[in-house]
Amino acid sequence: MYAISLGEGGAELRPLEPWRAEEFLAHMERGREFIGRYIALPDAVTDVESSRSYLQSYADKAAADTGRIYGIWADGTLVGGVLFRTMDVRLGNAEVGCWLEPAAVGKGLVTRAVRVIIDWAVEERGLHRVEWQVAAGNAASVAVAQRLGLTKEGVLRESYPYRGKRHDIEVWSVLAPEWRSARTLAQRS
Amino acid sequence: MYAISLGEGGAELRPLEPWRAEEFLAHMERGREFIGRYIALPDAVTDVESSRSYLQSYADKAAADTGRIYGIWADGTLVGGVLFRTMDVRLGNAEVGCWLEPAAVGKGLVTRAVRVIIDWAVEERGLHRVEWQVAAGNAASVAVAQRLGLTKEGVLRESYPYRGKRHDIEVWSVLAPEWRSARTLAQRS
Amino acid sequence: MYAISLGEGGAELRPLEPWRAEEFLAHMERGREFIGRYIALPDAVTDVESSRSYLQSYADKAAADTGRIYGIWADGTLVGGVLFRTMDVRLGNAEVGCWLEPAAVGKGLVTRAVRVIIDWAVEERGLHRVEWQVAAGNAASVAVAQRLGLTKEGVLRESYPYRGKRHDIEVWSVLAPEWRSARTLAQRS
Amino acid sequence: MYAISLGEGGAELRPLEPWRAEEFLAHMERGREFIGRYIALPDAVTDVESSRSYLQSYADKAAADTGRIYGIWADGTLVGGVLFRTMDVRLGNAEVGCWLEPAAVGKGLVTRAVRVIIDWAVEERGLHRVEWQVAAGNAASVAVAQRLGLTKEGVLRESYPYRGKRHDIEVWSVLAPEWRSARTLAQRS
Amino acid sequence: MYAISLGEGGAELRPLEPWRAEEFLAHMERGREFIGRYIALPDAVTDVESSRSYLQSYADKAAADTGRIYGIWADGTLVGGVLFRTMDVRLGNAEVGCWLEPAAVGKGLVTRAVRVIIDWAVEERGLHRVEWQVAAGNAASVAVAQRLGLTKEGVLRESYPYRGKRHDIEVWSVLAPEWRSARTLAQRS
Amino acid sequence: MYAISLGEGGAELRPLEPWRAEEFLAHMERGREFIGRYIALPDAVTDVESSRSYLQSYADKAAADTGRIYGIWADGTLVGGVLFRTMDVRLGNAEVGCWLEPAAVGKGLVTRAVRVIIDWAVEERGLHRVEWQVAAGNAASVAVAQRLGLTKEGVLRESYPYRGKRHDIEVWSVLAPEWRSARTLAQRS
Repeated sequence: MYAISLGEGGAELRPLEPWRAEEFLAHMERGREFIGRYIALPDAVTDVESSRSYLQSYADKAAADTGRIYGIWADGTLVGGVLFRTMDVRLGNAEVGCWLEPAAVGKGLVTRAVRVIIDWAVEERGLHRVEWQVAAGNAASVAVAQRLGLTKEGVLRESYPYRGKRHDIEVWSVLAPEWRSARTLAQRS
Repeated sequence: MYAISLGEGGAELRPLEPWRAEEFLAHMERGREFIGRYIALPDAVTDVESSRSYLQSYADKAAADTGRIYGIWADGTLVGGVLFRTMDVRLGNAEVGCWLEPAAVGKGLVTRAVRVIIDWAVEERGLHRVEWQVAAGNAASVAVAQRLGLTKEGVLRESYPYRGKRHDIEVWSVLAPEWRSARTLAQRS
Repeated sequence: MYAISLGEGGAELRPLEPWRAEEFLAHMERGREFIGRYIALPDAVTDVESSRSYLQSYADKAAADTGRIYGIWADGTLVGGVLFRTMDVRLGNAEVGCWLEPAAVGKGLVTRAVRVIIDWAVEERGLHRVEWQVAAGNAASVAVAQRLGLTKEGVLRESYPYRGKRHDIEVWSVLAPEWRSARTLAQRS
Repeated sequence: MYAISLGEGGAELRPLEPWRAEEFLAHMERGREFIGRYIALPDAVTDVESSRSYLQSYADKAAADTGRIYGIWADGTLVGGVLFRTMDVRLGNAEVGCWLEPAAVGKGLVTRAVRVIIDWAVEERGLHRVEWQVAAGNAASVAVAQRLGLTKEGVLRESYPYRGKRHDIEVWSVLAPEWRSARTLAQRS
Repeated sequence: MYAISLGEGGAELRPLEPWRAEEFLAHMERGREFIGRYIALPDAVTDVESSRSYLQSYADKAAADTGRIYGIWADGTLVGGVLFRTMDVRLGNAEVGCWLEPAAVGKGLVTRAVRVIIDWAVEERGLHRVEWQVAAGNAASVAVAQRLGLTKEGVLRESYPYRGKRHDIEVWSVLAPEWRSARTLAQRS
Repeated sequence: MYAISLGEGGAELRPLEPWRAEEFLAHMERGREFIGRYIALPDAVTDVESSRSYLQSYADKAAADTGRIYGIWADGTLVGGVLFRTMDVRLGNAEVGCWLEPAAVGKGLVTRAVRVIIDWAVEERGLHRVEWQVAAGNAASVAVAQRLGLTKEGVLRESYPYRGKRHDIEVWSVLAPEWRSARTLAQRS
């Protein structure tokens, strides 16, 4: 029902709710290997039950206003998504994240989708700081963070155990005033 | 962020979440007397806390997939809404409802909004039966039910105590095949 | 311990609590096919665990004052029961129901048992309206509703999916003043 | 609805549920001083809310099968009650208790009521041991325990702080075989 | 981290938390038969999951201040423990217990450990009465109770079903003033 | 009962449980202004109820193994504490913190206390990474982090709203191998 256009290609951002569990699982099957290179999402979604359970955890976060998840559909197929893994409205902070199956890469979908939800966080919800945590080797995600004008703040050393190794996590962020300035500049040009 | 146009006048259907509690209360203050003629909603929303609490009950229903609420905004002001008071996806049944503050009456907003959410219930969620319960004297709501092509099924006698009197409740409904036929007819003409 | 006579044949109405799970299951085995023609109760009671779980749901409703269940014993055997599937004391409404295994049919047990619990609902608890929902083809239940003096209020079309088909549900009800008048008449004659 | 006769005087044992909160409070007001000499029940029931809350705690125990409460009505007035403060069906143990307002004392109501519920515990529920804990100075309760044929097992020294003093608690009990023998004897004589 | 010396042999009392589940299970395997002669603890700890679950129940009691568990380590091996099966700070009562694997018997570990925790209960927490319930035939436990100066108060007849038989349970206790006197005497001598 | 010496001055690290609420409040009253310069702890502890509630939140974290709190006593007075604000044993990460009332400053108590609990986290619990988040201007805390050999990893810009201003938070950390090397070096010298 709700849908937000992600540009000329017809892709859309929509609610990703637990009743989509089978569709979410099918998407994860297509992107399992690719998505799983840096993030553990595919390990959490291995059958319909775990798929529903993962989406339910975000439905619960939405009800508690402590997180949100959104799916990206291209040509009617769920191909990825963006999320606020955490939101603390009282503190004014949120942590954004994203994923994409391989077929949808290279079209700017995630960049546009993240822009939409940071706009919402900053303008509608009044958050002050949006953080992006990314595994040190994840060049694609780092590129998105850069494209969106985020600032690298530091490296949480060996904080993320994944597939037998502890990875460094880079912390990037953007503050509300920075986000607004960047948008103003973008609109002028 | 999400928004669905309700026609040429710029009105929109959007998520109505607990963080809107103050806006929802202000809307209820404007419509309290008018909305309260037949439904108890205004009695449940009397200050910011009860307003948040009412919206939270629907946030919880959304997380449990047992109900939904949507606000109607006209010219940037929350003027009413539509909801699924109950949804039972396993049984294929839902009960729809609506309310409007006086300034927004007469523009077809509720009719269009209900159409959007019944479409979602029937086409996206696969529900078979959408019910509309309306107090016997509530001519405006009965008119919407008729305009949407619902069928009157009976009267639950004296089932609804409200402001010191027990009211009859009319039950109207539409079944999925009826809904689809009506839409096909509408599109043809 | 508690027991209410259901007439000269020695049948009794008694609490039906979770510790009766095995007895309830055995009863359901005897009546499974017959009871299951119109209601889903037998499908919910298929082993001791589900039997206990069903009775526990009513123990929880009793604690919350939102429902009640009562068993009918004839010659020391559990042969059926009556229940308030829902009770809303604040609104003054309840929905009554019943079931019986074939060996106990035709003795008026259910009619007498329902009379007992409607008396309780109306006189002790002050409920105003008792509703009876019955699948359209269920002639035996309709006959009980008529015998008790209930009024048919309408038909909820295709609201009840059961064994691959969506059934119409008839709504019957009796209001407190009607119930009292009928009893007075009965006592006079 | 349910009621068990407590002898020729017309007194009855009935369910004592949370919706009786006002009646229970009125009874407690009449018996507050007398009942409160040895037990803390009156201190827990001081207004309608705490009265409902106390009865709700027993409604919850009933649902969990870990306790029960029963009221004694004489001439239509709630005058006392008996209870299983705890029940552990798996272990086969329960602890019984009672209280009475002064106007109802001396008629054997409590003795008969306790007999009814121990019968239920032993015969219907299969419990093996029923315990009665009584403050050392509470001669009336000790007399009931003796009249029922219970055995004194020991004294829990200073285990019960009440009104500024720590009281000894006597433990009395009856085992299922003892209970059955006593009944057989009583019936013979 | 925390540790309390239990005398010259190097044994120590330490927190026994759920993350020790595997160590606790290994200990129980060594002592299963011996410990299980009188108490059901080994029956509750049969694999890592039930071991964690048992320890978790005490972690929850600690959080609620209704119980505590402590392990006894000798030469780096978990060999037994002591616990407050229940604590009711408002009433000023607690029930103490203990267990030991065979290799650690005869060194006074339990006596010393119980002394430590009764000291805590009486002096730090202000409890008035500490109870010790022991199966009638459990000579070793009775000996500890005697050594600690507890008083036998009575026998709860056939209150404890264990391995097909109902056992008598002896109740022993010590009151705060008694505990303090005994300690003063011990220190003088 | 449990206590760990913090050096020659007689100071000790002990469990800080909810029943200490009044003592904790009194301590907070003495240190409110000083402690509150950089951390919000004093704002969360303003009366006995909020004090108990704060300590209860850590009792619950302990039961769930997601955090711990420890008090520092000097000459029998609670003067500060250390804590794991979060612990994620599965990920191998924890966040450490501390506070102190002014009278106890300058004696190395916090440094020693933190050393004790990081030892526990690394050696007993197997955590890999211990993080320390400190407001940018909090020189005393930064000094402790440095003294303990932690590494500064970055700055979370304006992430911490406190008393009307958004503060930068420095992230420091130590990894298990670093912690062990530092200790070995210290022991050699």
